[in-house]
Amino acid sequence: MANFPKALLSLLISLSILSFFPLTLSSLVRSPKSASHFLGKFSRRPNHTDSLGAPNYRYEIRYFEQNLDHFSFSNLPKFRQRYLINTENWSGPDKLGPIFFYCGNEGDIEWFAANSGFVWEIAPPFGAMVVFPEHRYYGESMPYGSWNEAYKNATTLAHLTTEQALADFAVLITELKRNLSAQACPVVLFGGSYGGMLAAWMRLKYPHIAIGALASSAPVLEFEDLVPSENFYDIVSNDFKRESVNCFNTIKDSWDVIELEGEKSNGLSYLSETFRFCRYCFECFDLDDDPQGTNGWNWQACTEMVMPTSSSKNTSMFPAYDYDYASDEEWCLENYGVKPRPTWITTEFGGHGFKHALKNFGSNIIFSNGLLDPWSGGSVLEDISETIVALVTEKGAHHLDLRAATAEDPDWLVEQRAAEVKLIQSWLDQYLDKKRKVFDM
Amino acid sequence: MANFPKALLSLLISLSILSFFPLTLSSLVRSPKSASHFLGKFSRRPNHTDSLGAPNYRYEIRYFEQNLDHFSFSNLPKFRQRYLINTENWSGPDKLGPIFFYCGNEGDIEWFAANSGFVWEIAPPFGAMVVFPEHRYYGESMPYGSWNEAYKNATTLAHLTTEQALADFAVLITELKRNLSAQACPVVLFGGSYGGMLAAWMRLKYPHIAIGALASSAPVLEFEDLVPSENFYDIVSNDFKRESVNCFNTIKDSWDVIELEGEKSNGLSYLSETFRFCRYCFECFDLDDDPQGTNGWNWQACTEMVMPTSSSKNTSMFPAYDYDYASDEEWCLENYGVKPRPTWITTEFGGHGFKHALKNFGSNIIFSNGLLDPWSGGSVLEDISETIVALVTEKGAHHLDLRAATAEDPDWLVEQRAAEVKLIQSWLDQYLDKKRKVFDM
Repeated sequence: MANFPKALLSLLISLSILSFFPLTLSSLVRSPKSASHFLGKFSRRPNHTDSLGAPNYRYEIRYFEQNLDHFSFSNLPKFRQRYLINTENWSGPDKLGPIFFYCGNEGDIEWFAANSGFVWEIAPPFGAMVVFPEHRYYGESMPYGSWNEAYKNATTLAHLTTEQALADFAVLITELKRNLSAQACPVVLFGGSYGGMLAAWMRLKYPHIAIGALASSAPVLEFEDLVPSENFYDIVSNDFKRESVNCFNTIKDSWDVIELEGEKSNGLSYLSETFRFCRYCFECFDLDDDPQGTNGWNWQACTEMVMPTSSSKNTSMFPAYDYDYASDEEWCLENYGVKPRPTWITTEFGGHGFKHALKNFGSNIIFSNGLLDPWSGGSVLEDISETIVALVTEKGAHHLDLRAATAEDPDWLVEQRAAEVKLIQSWLDQYLDKKRKVFDM
Repeated sequence: MANFPKALLSLLISLSILSFFPLTLSSLVRSPKSASHFLGKFSRRPNHTDSLGAPNYRYEIRYFEQNLDHFSFSNLPKFRQRYLINTENWSGPDKLGPIFFYCGNEGDIEWFAANSGFVWEIAPPFGAMVVFPEHRYYGESMPYGSWNEAYKNATTLAHLTTEQALADFAVLITELKRNLSAQACPVVLFGGSYGGMLAAWMRLKYPHIAIGALASSAPVLEFEDLVPSENFYDIVSNDFKRESVNCFNTIKDSWDVIELEGEKSNGLSYLSETFRFCRYCFECFDLDDDPQGTNGWNWQACTEMVMPTSSSKNTSMFPAYDYDYASDEEWCLENYGVKPRPTWITTEFGGHGFKHALKNFGSNIIFSNGLLDPWSGGSVLEDISETIVALVTEKGAHHLDLRAATAEDPDWLVEQRAAEVKLIQSWLDQYLDKKRKVFDM
């Protein structure tokens, strides 16, 4: 261990955790047991009035009263869902001005708004209103009045589910349109990572509510055995390997060294100091740090978002392990008193037949993915039909396309965004065309 | 009143209540306030080993453990869903034998099975398995162990909702197929009245689970202002008028006479005796009689199934009244302690855009309706696309097509059923064709 380049190892491990989670991915934990290792590792929360030269996104903050349970009539308190809205560029109901609606995911919605420059940048030329609703149980959208109350136990957390979140969106859109006399205005959904899954599923489950969805880096197939459970770590590992085989090998070999060190007396203290864990210093690497309030994901991973993961002995640079549902279930029962429903998401949204359902009953969905992104291994990477298309970039990372444009963007990224704009325009054109035909009749 | 042909009036009123509810319709109450007037008026519960010459439908009775809430992780007791199953004619998983699945509605499932001869009769030539699942909170499928416990209060009734029932079906189908290694076998949905609504909605919300749906007499548009609220009583009234204008007028004029009589001293007693209400005799007309256990519908009408109804002063033979949501809400709050959500069904399943959604995202649905049926006024009466078709019969009644064939069936009914069989065959052919192509690849 004495000869081991500690600083490099520390950096590499941090990188392996950090570098593939530019926006939301890290909170899509791989399994309840490993959840704590992957949560919320972000350097800083971007501000929507960023002093670093990022565009200033202007919005009003509003609140909407939601039913805690849309699918039962249990006598539960309502909660306030926060949403951000900008109507400055909206061409209005008479011109059927579109509504760009970002499906808020597992964190503070202001943070997603600040990191989804693409939506803000393309809204004005489309004459679109922009709405960023917050996902229930995240940010300020807390049932029972506060985070402490909402996260108190399994009973209060019970309604943190994907279907309830989609229903929140459906009700919010419907009421918002009614209030603005904008019933006829088309809604386009956006979302990245889990938000992308929500956008795609919303388009399938509520086709009467939105005309299309840009689902960026959305691992909708990451359930049961739909894709190989090794995908995630294999892709991370290959990313390292393609930059440097040496780097890949160094990391791969490091785990045994670390484990040996940990078995020595004072070994754990030594490792903690080496990796600057927070119990031991102040400028530290806090494994429990969660500035974006994404810790509801542990609950979601323990209930519906059961995504099998394993690390291959041969192809992964991470410690090898097999997927073990039983131990995950045990972890969830111990920590939350809740038993996962590992086959529910596939029952509700489609499993092996998902692509078939997409092809036959869906339309107007973009699945965008960058192949450097480990979550691309659980997403849709080929065109399903003429209007359900995959935009795949070889060098893209986790929903990079949703970020604000910069002068340094490579051509392929500029082209990817242009293709997305073109597709969204085609959905709107088609919608307006149909409306016009009805009007002419 | 002395000159009023009492026996006739009594008969006519009974008829006006009874004759349009040959199977399930009557439980689709028009509004909470009028609910008690329209519930469960059936002469006798048919037996599936009927001695009157009706076919003997053979099935096993099984039970399946369901989550009470599919959309939250509240710590609630599971319940046993009853289902009837017959696999005698099933051609099995190797031959991709189809599964005919009747979406159980608001009553004892054995009763729907006994009255849906069409499903049983066409299953053998298709080599189909037949499954009749019971709707939660009806028949024996009682949460909390018994009817008394399930119907105790608003808290125990809370999970009697349409979305939960659809999720029950989705989970049951998925698990049943898994157990029978029949994952690749196509499922065809059937349903009449509310069951038809469930079949149509299930096809839209769970397209990956079933390849098509026969939605017979399904008033999926009977919400908000999607269709005129006068439709129901206008159609009943026109049915009487087409048989006899005199009859129509007699009934129309009777209400004032009855009201006047009721205002006299002993007038109400006289009316009760005349109409043989149960408080006054033994062979009686029991307004509260509910042999099929359909009384959960009152709850459903007070929560999600808010179907505006009015009776036109000019065109209806019933007492005129305007739809008054406020008084219905009051009734529901008083009687159940629950507040209806009148815009929820349209948000969840589609409102004004329902047909548009159907056309663009649906396929393989038959909406069959008879125009004598007052519920046809809230259903889909024209073809939506090549594969979403309306089969409308001028003289048809409430899901008559689902009943067993008899020697007396008129030609148009025989033809209607033949058209349904042909369409179902085309769905199956198309499905098998696709499967074969994948296999050949």
